[in-house]
Amino acid sequence: MTIGERIGFVTLATTDSYAAGALVLARSLRQVNTVAELVCLVSNSISEGTRTRLASEFDDVIVVDVLNSNDDAMLTLLKRPELGVTLTKLHCWKLTQYNKMVFLDADALVVKNIDDLFQREEISAVADCGWPSCFNSGVFVFKPSVDTFNELIEFAKNEGSFDGGDQGLLNDFFSDWSTKSIDRILPFGYNVHAAATYAYVPAFRRFKDQVKVVHFLGSTKPWTSKNPPQGEFSQFWQLWWSLYESNNQAKSSENVSQNTSNNNSVETPVMTPSGFAAVGQSQPGFTPTSPAKAGFDIIQDHLNAQLSSEASEPAPKFDIKPSKVMF
Amino acid sequence: MTIGERIGFVTLATTDSYAAGALVLARSLRQVNTVAELVCLVSNSISEGTRTRLASEFDDVIVVDVLNSNDDAMLTLLKRPELGVTLTKLHCWKLTQYNKMVFLDADALVVKNIDDLFQREEISAVADCGWPSCFNSGVFVFKPSVDTFNELIEFAKNEGSFDGGDQGLLNDFFSDWSTKSIDRILPFGYNVHAAATYAYVPAFRRFKDQVKVVHFLGSTKPWTSKNPPQGEFSQFWQLWWSLYESNNQAKSSENVSQNTSNNNSVETPVMTPSGFAAVGQSQPGFTPTSPAKAGFDIIQDHLNAQLSSEASEPAPKFDIKPSKVMF
Repeated sequence: MTIGERIGFVTLATTDSYAAGALVLARSLRQVNTVAELVCLVSNSISEGTRTRLASEFDDVIVVDVLNSNDDAMLTLLKRPELGVTLTKLHCWKLTQYNKMVFLDADALVVKNIDDLFQREEISAVADCGWPSCFNSGVFVFKPSVDTFNELIEFAKNEGSFDGGDQGLLNDFFSDWSTKSIDRILPFGYNVHAAATYAYVPAFRRFKDQVKVVHFLGSTKPWTSKNPPQGEFSQFWQLWWSLYESNNQAKSSENVSQNTSNNNSVETPVMTPSGFAAVGQSQPGFTPTSPAKAGFDIIQDHLNAQLSSEASEPAPKFDIKPSKVMF
Repeated sequence: MTIGERIGFVTLATTDSYAAGALVLARSLRQVNTVAELVCLVSNSISEGTRTRLASEFDDVIVVDVLNSNDDAMLTLLKRPELGVTLTKLHCWKLTQYNKMVFLDADALVVKNIDDLFQREEISAVADCGWPSCFNSGVFVFKPSVDTFNELIEFAKNEGSFDGGDQGLLNDFFSDWSTKSIDRILPFGYNVHAAATYAYVPAFRRFKDQVKVVHFLGSTKPWTSKNPPQGEFSQFWQLWWSLYESNNQAKSSENVSQNTSNNNSVETPVMTPSGFAAVGQSQPGFTPTSPAKAGFDIIQDHLNAQLSSEASEPAPKFDIKPSKVMF
């Protein structure tokens, strides 16, 4: 990137649960002091209330209304309904007000600053643990372009997706990812698959200082249970909850604590407008940033402080801005 | 490689079970018509009988007698006994009679010709599914060199291995593998991790024509049971047994069939001298190579033929050459 280029992280929420993930993702990016803007795409199935809550954390919340659009995506969707969410995700290529973007799945958590990703080219991504000659589409660098978007839609119409999702489609479209340039293969730390089945524990311990993004793969997500799974990733599960609750104490005491007497399960977080700090506001649940510490350390300090604290103040309420429909 | 360069595949057997794996690996390499030589390193715990049986399949069987050597490896082994097998494997770098080699773990099965690997540079390998910025050390291209061997031993003494095995050691030693050159990151097809926990089934189906080497990771190996695990890799499990039994009918009918009435389990193969064809001899258990078919197809044809056959001839006995101690 060069001075003057507009850069942004973008994620996607298609359900209220994933909206909770998106919210925590945004907070994690703020915590590591990103200089990029934060954008959340939401499908039109997301309620207005949830959209407005997301708008208090993101710089922009954009409704992707595929079915009511006039573009080719609608026709493709009608012919291949299984690609619905996939096509919604592809709309990130239409964010041409940005010069360079990084897509992050809403079940990802950023623990160290990753703004250096904006120096990479399209398409840069991490190898998928299931088939490492494919990239995992949970984190990728891309350059918004209407031409690319149209080509992707055309490709989806003709080829579909070998795994029924965006990962299969994007890997077939960017089929030279694993052979074109070493610079496009991101270190695993940018998308550490937090799933017990994929864990190579000695490597995780050896390279733990390289962990920048944790991606909660699989069907069990942090928002499904407050009780972390056993293993190396439990600390990140706890971090997720720490961030979720950090500005959401009213919600936390209202809906969560009643279910955690044995710390085994909680209801899926349902976002309410209360307790969310507007972007740029101070976040009273967190220790102020120390110059000597960054990323994970800061969040870990906060987690430690929270665990040792017996009481916390409810977070203040702020005004929120309305979301808008872009596509 | 250039004309006149000597090339070889090398594997390692440290137990009789892994010797069975090495034997099948050698047969699989012959089946795909490799032009390279086949070398088997064995630790000095392997019996003379097993060594001689391996010598009927490999061009060379070399005993790596670390404890009786006078080199630095012995001292390192005494200080770090957990690195014993690792150090045995490292001895492949001392095979300087070869210009270029490919190491294959004995629990690997080759289903397509991979001689093109000899055009790659040290160190070329496939990403490990557990941490894809590390390579899996089950398949790697290397250049034998006493200097490199000595550096590896020195490194082992000073640094140990982060996972207690050769993979941790080699990844720390060749620490620029994931960043130096795209040509050193081999396509996943050269080392497909056959473990249910790592399977990305849609990708396996999409790229199944790219599968060249199947690596039976995990604690359950083909030699532990004739009954294949469920899933995409069962066909390769059956192929392994097909190859194991192809020239081993006397052994098969003697030791295996009595345990397979319910096809659930068999004893671990124990190699006997009977029924092994010397290298270069015709292999009566196999259909002759068809010009129109190669690799997997040939083996699959054989498997099909074997499954539909009600009886098979016991394979002939051949003289075998003695193994020698090199290191």
